[in-house]
Amino acid sequence: MALVNEHFLKLPNNYLFADISKKVNAFKVQHPTAGVISLGIGDVTRPLCPAVVEAIHKAADEMGTEGGFHGYGPEQGYAFLREAIVKNDFLPRGIHLDPSEIFVNDGAKSDTGNIQELVRWDNSIGVTDPIYPVYIDSNVMIGRAGVVNDGRWSNVVYMPCTAGNGFVPQLPDRRVDIIYLCYPNNPTGTVLSKDELRKWVNYALRNDTLIFFDAAYEAYIQNPDIPHSIYEIKGARKVAIEFHSYSKTAGFTGVRCGYTVVPKEVTAATLEGERISLHKLWYRRQCTKFNGASYISQRAAEATYTPEGREQVRQTIGYYMENARLMRNALTALGLRVYGGEDAPYLWVQTPDGEGSWRFFEQMLYNAHVVCTPGVGFGPSGEGYVRLTAFGDRDSCLEALDRIGRWLG
Amino acid sequence: MALVNEHFLKLPNNYLFADISKKVNAFKVQHPTAGVISLGIGDVTRPLCPAVVEAIHKAADEMGTEGGFHGYGPEQGYAFLREAIVKNDFLPRGIHLDPSEIFVNDGAKSDTGNIQELVRWDNSIGVTDPIYPVYIDSNVMIGRAGVVNDGRWSNVVYMPCTAGNGFVPQLPDRRVDIIYLCYPNNPTGTVLSKDELRKWVNYALRNDTLIFFDAAYEAYIQNPDIPHSIYEIKGARKVAIEFHSYSKTAGFTGVRCGYTVVPKEVTAATLEGERISLHKLWYRRQCTKFNGASYISQRAAEATYTPEGREQVRQTIGYYMENARLMRNALTALGLRVYGGEDAPYLWVQTPDGEGSWRFFEQMLYNAHVVCTPGVGFGPSGEGYVRLTAFGDRDSCLEALDRIGRWLG
Repeated sequence: MALVNEHFLKLPNNYLFADISKKVNAFKVQHPTAGVISLGIGDVTRPLCPAVVEAIHKAADEMGTEGGFHGYGPEQGYAFLREAIVKNDFLPRGIHLDPSEIFVNDGAKSDTGNIQELVRWDNSIGVTDPIYPVYIDSNVMIGRAGVVNDGRWSNVVYMPCTAGNGFVPQLPDRRVDIIYLCYPNNPTGTVLSKDELRKWVNYALRNDTLIFFDAAYEAYIQNPDIPHSIYEIKGARKVAIEFHSYSKTAGFTGVRCGYTVVPKEVTAATLEGERISLHKLWYRRQCTKFNGASYISQRAAEATYTPEGREQVRQTIGYYMENARLMRNALTALGLRVYGGEDAPYLWVQTPDGEGSWRFFEQMLYNAHVVCTPGVGFGPSGEGYVRLTAFGDRDSCLEALDRIGRWLG
Repeated sequence: MALVNEHFLKLPNNYLFADISKKVNAFKVQHPTAGVISLGIGDVTRPLCPAVVEAIHKAADEMGTEGGFHGYGPEQGYAFLREAIVKNDFLPRGIHLDPSEIFVNDGAKSDTGNIQELVRWDNSIGVTDPIYPVYIDSNVMIGRAGVVNDGRWSNVVYMPCTAGNGFVPQLPDRRVDIIYLCYPNNPTGTVLSKDELRKWVNYALRNDTLIFFDAAYEAYIQNPDIPHSIYEIKGARKVAIEFHSYSKTAGFTGVRCGYTVVPKEVTAATLEGERISLHKLWYRRQCTKFNGASYISQRAAEATYTPEGREQVRQTIGYYMENARLMRNALTALGLRVYGGEDAPYLWVQTPDGEGSWRFFEQMLYNAHVVCTPGVGFGPSGEGYVRLTAFGDRDSCLEALDRIGRWLG
């Protein structure tokens, strides 16, 4: 008899955003003319920039010719893209990576979900709380997270990030095998200074801990002192794997391309204490379960590094960050406590009068016809907050602020 | 201390095709003017058909406009594609699927590798031998395959397919929880009749076994009596998950799109005997670890179902099958025993005088400058065979046959 992987049954029935979308759809059916505006899911809305569109056209034409056709690419991604990444995303920050340390993928969600396959099922994990649900859910599915009780998993160490500690997580008071960090942070929109990030790298070096560092939002950093990559910290090459994505950087949520950095020095141990290169294991994993990202998406990603591509991408990010500024100002003027949104496209808003996240979500939906994401969906310390995203188009964003103003004002 | 997943260390160092590519590159360095022709890896070579190229252009233009931009799509794939699949790939064969039973992906390799996450780590598995390496390797990585001894894994039941049994696998003599079948078969290029396939479905119904059915090559079937889908067999909806790909059907190895069929009736049991819908679990898995296939690739896949797209795809498949016919004839005329290649793009060639697969591979490379795939790379019963693919362009294919003729003739 085929037996099911029972760890799956411990998960909440729905992925957070599927859950929200169900509730929003129910509202829309009852209120078909309400014109709901979503500031909920972190999806971009601006068109692909012209340099990217042009690259896709060119790749499509190539693929239609005998000489230009590209079949299976290297599982790790084409050299043209991996070299552009090393040269543009890292070298200018003084980080020296070899193109063979870059693994191009179909988006960061896949790799942040799959990376845990490389380590033992019973390694302990630590997460900042609140957190992007994929990190925990992917560990639940393999049994690593243990059992859940009141929203907390037994084998997960939670490091709360709240207004109380300025959203700066404390080092855990015990050894943890693997730590997930995401900066600029999803969902709180806050960042870590170089000094704070250094504490984590040093903790990892001291404790033989692996850090899975999600840098999906680094392009939104405005403050020149904030690190864009964990490899800006000395020693990180020994302990950290870093995830990048073109989704938010260049509006690729529908195009699908990202990359993972696995430095050759990163290792984990066997029970006998032998050190095993995770680069080698990840390569084996990708060759077995992945067939490379689309050639067309890789050419599209490459185009974001041309002078025109860079400028166009910069403008789009500027557009979203102007949304974030308008949102911060308007919501603050309404008396709300607003965090994030200065170096990230997310605003983390404290609910008034200690209202529960889901209750505030529903009130905003029913009273202002605006969708937010309930903070508690990202973890227990998210209770009492909601996340708003700056990814809307300007008019919707202003209209949403206006409606929230009329509701709360 | 972060501990490594030691199951990975049981795997051979390289994925089969990475291994071959290393040997071929070594030969090329030594013989830079040899003009090596590859009939090895199963990658297509014909350009994308015009209908597909046009669809990519159109999608790129859409994505460059405010109104036509598409961000995250549904994790399961867009309805336009899932509906086209149901209507074109199944309805004409009398198979009624609901579009919600289709999961669009970035290629069949991902899903055939990931599907095993849904079942317990200690379920037993059965494979036809020889076999596509991903099925076993993905089970090795989670510990399900046990330990390897002389090319055989301790928890895997092998069902040999050789000239001796006409490449028709026998039902295992014991219960197996999960069985992988691939028809038309990779690597042997052979097919199963409806009667033979029915035996497997009935075995699965009788033994509460799950079948993972890989139909990646169904478009190559010429004989009208051969089933294209396991769902042509009564009862299969209860026991089988089926994998499809546009890679070989429409030359999408570089575009990346495929789909998996998970009927709502397919279940696996908990230890307490409760039946759990695998559809629901797979949906949860995909929402957590996958962010949908590229919008552009999905529009490209949709174009293969238009009247022009269908005709263009049919012509490309005809081209490859004519290669296969020429190869069968020429190799048979040389006195080789050749199997497959009539309803599949693969020829399975017995090595002369019981030569080992790898030795014959090297002889062909050094004497004819032609790359094949050593049969033993697909499993112990592949020893004494090599696989040739019909995916080359006609001239290279004829030139390769000519060289093999001069070498063996």
